[in-house]
Order: sequence, then C-alpha cells, then structure tokens
Amino acid sequence: MKYSSKLIADAVGEFTKLPGIGEKTALRLVLHLLKQDEDKVEVFSKAVSRMRKDIKFCRVCHNVADQEVCEICNNAHRDASTVCLVESIRDVMAIENTGIYKGVYHILGGIISPIDGVGPEKLNIQSLIDRVKQGDIHEIIMAISPTIEGDTTSFYVSKRLSGLDVKISSIARGISFGGELEYADEMTLARSIATRLPYENSLIQH
Amino acid sequence: MKYSSKLIADAVGEFTKLPGIGEKTALRLVLHLLKQDEDKVEVFSKAVSRMRKDIKFCRVCHNVADQEVCEICNNAHRDASTVCLVESIRDVMAIENTGIYKGVYHILGGIISPIDGVGPEKLNIQSLIDRVKQGDIHEIIMAISPTIEGDTTSFYVSKRLSGLDVKISSIARGISFGGELEYADEMTLARSIATRLPYENSLIQH
Repeated sequence: MKYSSKLIADAVGEFTKLPGIGEKTALRLVLHLLKQDEDKVEVFSKAVSRMRKDIKFCRVCHNVADQEVCEICNNAHRDASTVCLVESIRDVMAIENTGIYKGVYHILGGIISPIDGVGPEKLNIQSLIDRVKQGDIHEIIMAISPTIEGDTTSFYVSKRLSGLDVKISSIARGISFGGELEYADEMTLARSIATRLPYENSLIQH
Repeated sequence: MKYSSKLIADAVGEFTKLPGIGEKTALRLVLHLLKQDEDKVEVFSKAVSRMRKDIKFCRVCHNVADQEVCEICNNAHRDASTVCLVESIRDVMAIENTGIYKGVYHILGGIISPIDGVGPEKLNIQSLIDRVKQGDIHEIIMAISPTIEGDTTSFYVSKRLSGLDVKISSIARGISFGGELEYADEMTLARSIATRLPYENSLIQH
C-alpha cells in the first residue's frame, strides 16, 4: 500500500511486525492513534517502551517482575515449598486467575523442541535443580502442556530431579468440566478412565 | 486478569484501548514485544510517538503529510484541476492504490451525522469552497460512501457549490466487477439499470 506520509508508513510497518496484525489492521490502529490527543499517544508509546526497558525477571522463579524478586516469590502467605513448573509467564497468569493455587512457580521459558533448536540447556532447568538442592522444596507440580514436546520436557526434568529429595506430581488430565464425553479425543478419554479417581474427589465443590 | 508486574499491566491496558484489541490479544502483543530486543521495541515505540507528534495535515487538501503540503498536492504531474472529494485519509489510500487517478483530493474529515454530533461546520467544507473560488478547479468528483449520511453530505456540499463555476460528478455506482447479479441489493441493481452506460464503456479494458 502507498502512504502519503513516511511517518504513517513507518508506524504501520512497526505494527505489522506484531503477531496476528496485517497491514489493514495496522493501518486501522495507526489512524486510530492519529485521531487521539498527542499526550495519550505518548502514554501508549511510553508504556510500551518502559515495559521492555524496566522489566525484570525474578531471580528465583524467572517470572516477570518489577523488582529483583517477583511478588509471588516475595509473598510470605504463599507456600514456598510447593513449586509449580510451567512453560511461560502466560501459564502463571492462567493459574493465578483460578485463585486456587497458593504455592510458587518456576518458569522454564519454553519447552524442549529440537526442531526449533531449543535444547534443555536453553531452559531454566539448572536453576530449578539448584532451588531443589537448597532443600526447602517438598513438591514440584509439573504443569506443562500435554503435547509431545511438553511430555518430553516433563520427562527430562523428572529424570534430572531423580535422586533429589522432592515429590514430583503432575496436573490432572481428563475431561474438562462442561466438556462433552463424545467430543473428547480417545487418548484423553482412555487415560481418564485408567486414572479414575474417587467419586467425591471429582466434584467441583470438593 | 492479574499481572505480576505493573509494567506489563500498564502496557496491556494501553493496547486494549486500541480498536478491536481485547485483553487476551493485548497480552499476546505485550509478551511478544517482551521477547524482542530492547532496541527493536524502542523503534516501535518511537515510530508511534513520532508519527503522532510530527504528522502534519496538508493545508490544501487536509491529507496527512510530512510537510506543509502533501506529496500529492505537491506533485506537478498530478492534475490539480480535478479534485476528488473523500471522507477520510483511508479513502485516499484506497483510491491511490488503484493507480488510475491522476487528480488531487480534498478530505472532508468525516460525514454529516447529527446523531454523532457532526454538523457541516466540523467538516472541511469551507476550505473546499475557498479552493474552488480561487478558480483553478474544473471538476469535483464526489467519492463519498453511498450511505444515508454520505448522500446527505454529498448533497449538502453540492448545494454549497452551486453557483460556482465547477463541474460536479460522482463515482459510478453499480454492480461490482466479479459481483453476482443475484446477490446485488435491489437498489443497486435498479439504479445500475436506470444509469446504464454504453456497452464499450463498461469493459475493464476501456
């Protein structure tokens, strides 16, 4: 597309670099910003720039943080002996939104994926081992997506943890609440029968 | 949603102010930016901020411009005696992309819409009259969307121009190329019969 202004063309070009944003959407966003007050656009631009520049990663769990240690690790009300192992910050947000988990986290920063050139050495696995070796962790809950790469990663981490004095568990897999049996895939259904649990444990109110 | 970092929450909040971007999409964009190099994010943020701060509006046609007068008005190869009247910058871009129009533009900056509180005085109508009064304009092509508000606007502008020595035309309305007759709305179809044109003029190759 031709733009009568290089400033517009530049801004559109930058927006199209974002995932899921094509040129038409980018132009719509840019023209929207163009209609806003200058100071409002400045606030937008500053928020983005400051976010990237000032963000820190918690030195304990690798979560995003405004200080050296994130709010979750810093929270004395959280159970620091239970660590939930997740792939990304997004998973932390998803679990936090349930409001049910009171332990802390460890963010791997990805999963093992040889195709994408991600080997175990690129993930925050050693720092997890170090945390466990310090001795205050009783349980690690694997909360990695049940895909081939995810399962490989969980398996690799569990091997690395073997021999250390820590209990390893996994989030339950089965049929979603509200999910219809007939639409569940065969593996999920088969595993949910094999790993059936006492009826009273299966209730939401439990 | 809860964010472990205020910086992230702020950036997500700013993105959700953009049209068509909800919280989940905003978070995806923010986490994407977080993974980029700091200088790349700075380029993004600067492009947006500079676009809004340094943008100028052409004092002739009100198009966006990098200088006082836009590239189109400044182009000696364009026919300055033919002015295409459009609603917005977006329409200019759409017409420019056809590569067929060699005249110049006049951007109204909206259409008359009493419901939204937009009266004729808020649009760039007087500056169009002034351009015509200077005497170098032979034809004004109305290229306003054929909606009720659009037609009202075209009608109002044509009234204001009556008495001035300028030809007023309108973009053709009818069945789109590649459009199926049976799916065309009745009004378009009826008008396209009433305003039928010589066969050889209807060919793409004309």
